[in-house]
Amino acid sequence: MTTKDAPLILQKDRYFDANTEKRKISRHLYRLAKDLPLVCPHGHVDPKLFAENSPFGDPTELLVIPDHYLYRMLYSQGIPMESLGVPRIDGGATETDHRKIWQIVGENFYLFRGTPTGCWLKHELHDVFGIRKRLTGDTAMEIYDQISDALAKPENLPRAMFERFNIEVLATTDSPIDTLEHHQKIRGSGWNGRIIPSFRPDQVTDIALPEWRKNIDNLSQISGIDCTNYRGFIRALEERRQFFIEMGATATDHGVKTPFTIELSAKEATNLFEKAISGRATSEDAKAFTAQILMESARMSIEDGLTMMLHPGAYRNHNEWVLKTFGRDKGCDIPMQTDYVENMKPLLNKYGTNPKLTLIVFTLDETSYARELAPLAGHYPAMKLGPAWWFHDSPEGMLRYRRMVTETAGIYNTVGFNDDTRAFPSIPARHDLARRIDSRFLADLVTEHVIDLDEAEEMIVDLSYNLVKKNYKL
Amino acid sequence: MTTKDAPLILQKDRYFDANTEKRKISRHLYRLAKDLPLVCPHGHVDPKLFAENSPFGDPTELLVIPDHYLYRMLYSQGIPMESLGVPRIDGGATETDHRKIWQIVGENFYLFRGTPTGCWLKHELHDVFGIRKRLTGDTAMEIYDQISDALAKPENLPRAMFERFNIEVLATTDSPIDTLEHHQKIRGSGWNGRIIPSFRPDQVTDIALPEWRKNIDNLSQISGIDCTNYRGFIRALEERRQFFIEMGATATDHGVKTPFTIELSAKEATNLFEKAISGRATSEDAKAFTAQILMESARMSIEDGLTMMLHPGAYRNHNEWVLKTFGRDKGCDIPMQTDYVENMKPLLNKYGTNPKLTLIVFTLDETSYARELAPLAGHYPAMKLGPAWWFHDSPEGMLRYRRMVTETAGIYNTVGFNDDTRAFPSIPARHDLARRIDSRFLADLVTEHVIDLDEAEEMIVDLSYNLVKKNYKL
Amino acid sequence: MTTKDAPLILQKDRYFDANTEKRKISRHLYRLAKDLPLVCPHGHVDPKLFAENSPFGDPTELLVIPDHYLYRMLYSQGIPMESLGVPRIDGGATETDHRKIWQIVGENFYLFRGTPTGCWLKHELHDVFGIRKRLTGDTAMEIYDQISDALAKPENLPRAMFERFNIEVLATTDSPIDTLEHHQKIRGSGWNGRIIPSFRPDQVTDIALPEWRKNIDNLSQISGIDCTNYRGFIRALEERRQFFIEMGATATDHGVKTPFTIELSAKEATNLFEKAISGRATSEDAKAFTAQILMESARMSIEDGLTMMLHPGAYRNHNEWVLKTFGRDKGCDIPMQTDYVENMKPLLNKYGTNPKLTLIVFTLDETSYARELAPLAGHYPAMKLGPAWWFHDSPEGMLRYRRMVTETAGIYNTVGFNDDTRAFPSIPARHDLARRIDSRFLADLVTEHVIDLDEAEEMIVDLSYNLVKKNYKL
Repeated sequence: MTTKDAPLILQKDRYFDANTEKRKISRHLYRLAKDLPLVCPHGHVDPKLFAENSPFGDPTELLVIPDHYLYRMLYSQGIPMESLGVPRIDGGATETDHRKIWQIVGENFYLFRGTPTGCWLKHELHDVFGIRKRLTGDTAMEIYDQISDALAKPENLPRAMFERFNIEVLATTDSPIDTLEHHQKIRGSGWNGRIIPSFRPDQVTDIALPEWRKNIDNLSQISGIDCTNYRGFIRALEERRQFFIEMGATATDHGVKTPFTIELSAKEATNLFEKAISGRATSEDAKAFTAQILMESARMSIEDGLTMMLHPGAYRNHNEWVLKTFGRDKGCDIPMQTDYVENMKPLLNKYGTNPKLTLIVFTLDETSYARELAPLAGHYPAMKLGPAWWFHDSPEGMLRYRRMVTETAGIYNTVGFNDDTRAFPSIPARHDLARRIDSRFLADLVTEHVIDLDEAEEMIVDLSYNLVKKNYKL
Repeated sequence: MTTKDAPLILQKDRYFDANTEKRKISRHLYRLAKDLPLVCPHGHVDPKLFAENSPFGDPTELLVIPDHYLYRMLYSQGIPMESLGVPRIDGGATETDHRKIWQIVGENFYLFRGTPTGCWLKHELHDVFGIRKRLTGDTAMEIYDQISDALAKPENLPRAMFERFNIEVLATTDSPIDTLEHHQKIRGSGWNGRIIPSFRPDQVTDIALPEWRKNIDNLSQISGIDCTNYRGFIRALEERRQFFIEMGATATDHGVKTPFTIELSAKEATNLFEKAISGRATSEDAKAFTAQILMESARMSIEDGLTMMLHPGAYRNHNEWVLKTFGRDKGCDIPMQTDYVENMKPLLNKYGTNPKLTLIVFTLDETSYARELAPLAGHYPAMKLGPAWWFHDSPEGMLRYRRMVTETAGIYNTVGFNDDTRAFPSIPARHDLARRIDSRFLADLVTEHVIDLDEAEEMIVDLSYNLVKKNYKL
Repeated sequence: MTTKDAPLILQKDRYFDANTEKRKISRHLYRLAKDLPLVCPHGHVDPKLFAENSPFGDPTELLVIPDHYLYRMLYSQGIPMESLGVPRIDGGATETDHRKIWQIVGENFYLFRGTPTGCWLKHELHDVFGIRKRLTGDTAMEIYDQISDALAKPENLPRAMFERFNIEVLATTDSPIDTLEHHQKIRGSGWNGRIIPSFRPDQVTDIALPEWRKNIDNLSQISGIDCTNYRGFIRALEERRQFFIEMGATATDHGVKTPFTIELSAKEATNLFEKAISGRATSEDAKAFTAQILMESARMSIEDGLTMMLHPGAYRNHNEWVLKTFGRDKGCDIPMQTDYVENMKPLLNKYGTNPKLTLIVFTLDETSYARELAPLAGHYPAMKLGPAWWFHDSPEGMLRYRRMVTETAGIYNTVGFNDDTRAFPSIPARHDLARRIDSRFLADLVTEHVIDLDEAEEMIVDLSYNLVKKNYKL
């Protein structure tokens, strides 16, 4: 399934439609976007990278073992995660020969044909590491060595890469019980790369988590506030948000199964919290508590100005064996059907018209783009629509997003792209893909005379740069 | 966000694909459709316009204040509805300077880039009012004056416009408790524009409406039948339908949250109605009653020949503050997921094979096009599928509709376009867009050799003219 | 609605995009696929055809009466099924003049413009029967005679057609209580066409069927095992699977309303079965029993190696009058919304990682392609995704499938095409259409530089031939 010695070429017109007129306009618009700084308002890069600025590990350590996009596909074809070096919780044996792992990736890289992971990795290999041959079983070892060499160079240290990538700001995702020590260290280092935290409270707000009670104790400790009662808990969240703001944060993030919201009385909320603290909360209670916390978070955002991101719709850790053996976030999250109309009504009715709130809603359920989300974002002043995300930040996925959203919400109720990645060296590839697809989308509108070229020229800059800065207050 | 002095040009190939071959065939097919009379079987134009034939108001009064498509987008970007002159229920202050309102629209018209509202308004400004500059903050006042001048001319009186637009028939949407005085006046005027009512009984059949009980009294009064019992109520509906038929009506229309239908016994229906009359009906009762009324309406249609339209799937007035402050239909209706398979089974099983029934079903849930509606319309003789509607009568929306519906239902189980608008001067723009998109869709089929050109030539005329006349019996 | 004497031409570039570059590459890729043998892993052709090898009936008998795709469209336009010769259960009068029926089809063949049924039939008429005129009311009788003549020739006997069609293997769909006598006869005949059964146990596993109890008695009889207790029932299934394997079967097939699965204890399963045997099972029981049988079937597949197909999502026999009058499978099955995430979790958690299982999941709910099925198939090693199916094996339907599935699951978690037809002479047309659409899809990826041409060359062969052989173990 491989071709020996095929060259690796990044075609200059990639991801554009083949029609001559469309391609020409896509190219023109892309030229206006490609050198704009990268704004990364939501992602999972480890800030430690930049605090320490140590060399990245070997190619397998950098590009394979932490990337569940990559190994989930290999796993789906029967390649055990152990053979790819993914660590087991029980410390059981996994492959330690990183060259051998890379060889498996090379032999199976054909599986990624037609996938965004394939697109990103090719871009990354070519542009970041200077690879010029297609990754196959035949070329795997040669490429491994080339990447290893590249990683040893000072120009490929994390901070140097950050600068070379032209990243204007990179937001990480952090827990309220995180000390943000790495962010502090970066600040103290004199390096002026802008790396800011985001406030993601799920670990202390999801009362269904087994470790929730422990997290509450940690929250008490770090905040110096007794969090075993609802009032203290809420106050601690507010104070931690202040600390995050001091550390540069401009946004919060909420990962929930459904966007269910509800207005509880103070008494009901207090009772729920007490049930949770005493270990008597049911799954229904957990659902109600999450709904209540979303309401409280919107209220806090109005008070402290943090943009609020809402990421619903994933059935987390669907494969229980993988969860038990390898832990969370190992490529077994599955999107679910999601209702926004009934679920978000309480929150939108209470805060959706408040000019102080920016609520960015994401979805994994594309059926809601045209049906629910564009109409909601096209009406409520506070609500904006997040970009095609996770499973959908791909060429077809991003085109579907624009085509289903724009006609009702316009582009000005959307907020630009986010890469949402923990794979730092893939960031330029992801933004490049998004900018190309937006250029292509706009070229369609121009050639079909829905908009004029000068409008598209403004829009591509808005989509690539202005909207994200505005909505995340960056 | 504006470009000074950009010209406003209606490109002759707008909305066609840029591929040369496709464009050529689209153009050819469109030429066969563009001059066909406009048939408008479902809409919300006020018949008073034509009864009185007075000049339209100023540009803001005509094009902004009544158009919730337009101001919902501005509202979504934080522009208060008061500042756009939308009247408050409590009579509270709203902007009265119409030039100032128009200026806001001009400054923010860039928000409509890529939206059908943008397409329609550009067409309307260009073709109806002779504007040749792009609407921006810079040009707003100049354009306001030009439109004002145009509106003062006799050629822009409602009846003259009706004739110039080449409208063959225009159906309005009317309540059973409407006297149809405007329709009567038009008939008596000697003018031969064909403006007919449609029978939309929601106001007297939705027992959940706060004003329902009052409407029943009005129905009793206008029909001369005591409607406080079920039998009388049904008889009054039947008699009002007869009156509408005498006034030219050919269709009924039913706006419901879900297309739930149910076969109740006479006793159950009577009991439900009694609960409603005595103010004891629950929301479950309201759902069942609506379901029962759909069954009764189908039965009546079989008896009196009125085509039956069913419009489900909108969560009405989602923003309660807007509802309370400005009233219904102010741009806060949100589409919902809708099931047709289980919900419509009782009705389709009872009447779906009856050759005397034409039941046109609409949807706001595009996921049901290929999955449910095309298979249902491709089987039941009585059922036809309404066009892409409301949020979806846009270039992409109408293309998705054709692509998802045609393969299972063909085009002959669909019923042509309807503009569904209260914005009279936008009617030509809307039909033009639909005809262009249908031409484009058929050009795809021709260039991909799914159909031959001569077949497409017949189909474009069927889609633009014949199917709507046939299915609405016009 | 017809054009006299229009020629019937199969354009060589049909179903390809009109863009010159895309068309050229589509054509190139299609050339690599078009002569590959047809592998037909799932369908409903009657094996008796090949056991007896008698001439096919007249054109109407062959192409109209058994094809519910064809007559459902005519029925939807008000043409009674009786007038098309579809037999009534009560033996009531139906049209017997087959020329008259064919005339109706000719007159109404324009209804199939833009449908896959139209595409297939045109291909079939042209390539299988040598017709060169478009089928209309004017040409119907002439074409009837030509087909009749063709059917009389030895080259159009079933076995000769099978060979001419280049079919490598054809799987039928058979009940556990079928003796497979026709398969036995084919084997004994010395003819080496490979026609194999598939094991579809619905008739004995769906306890909601009115005839279920009788089927159980038949199962007892044919297996020689008392099937009135759960243990015997399961053992009988296992033994019948063995018999099917001996007869060449490589797969089982399960048609269910939802893909709900559940892990019951032996006792619970036994109790359920006893309730069913004693006629006391509720519809909830039937749902649970089906869910349990899916689990048992997966276990059996792991033991005996049969690939397992799961076909959920049809509301069967939606039109009760048609069911009562004409019986099952008469064109009134309607796709339903289907959840895979929660429903399949028990089965996938228990067996989804087992390397001995190949579970091929189909859907009629396209919204699940990108949202649920591609992520599930892109993770679980045992799960593969079946092709666009039934209502969706059309040009647009298959393109949507590839575009929504490939980015997350790649092509290597899909399993090639199946024709799923009972209309034997339409098989080449169906595979040809699928191969063309796959060529077109890959040409898009090549011209947009997502993949290289040599990769597409491998992929088209994989999609057309290798994947189906591998996953169905053919």
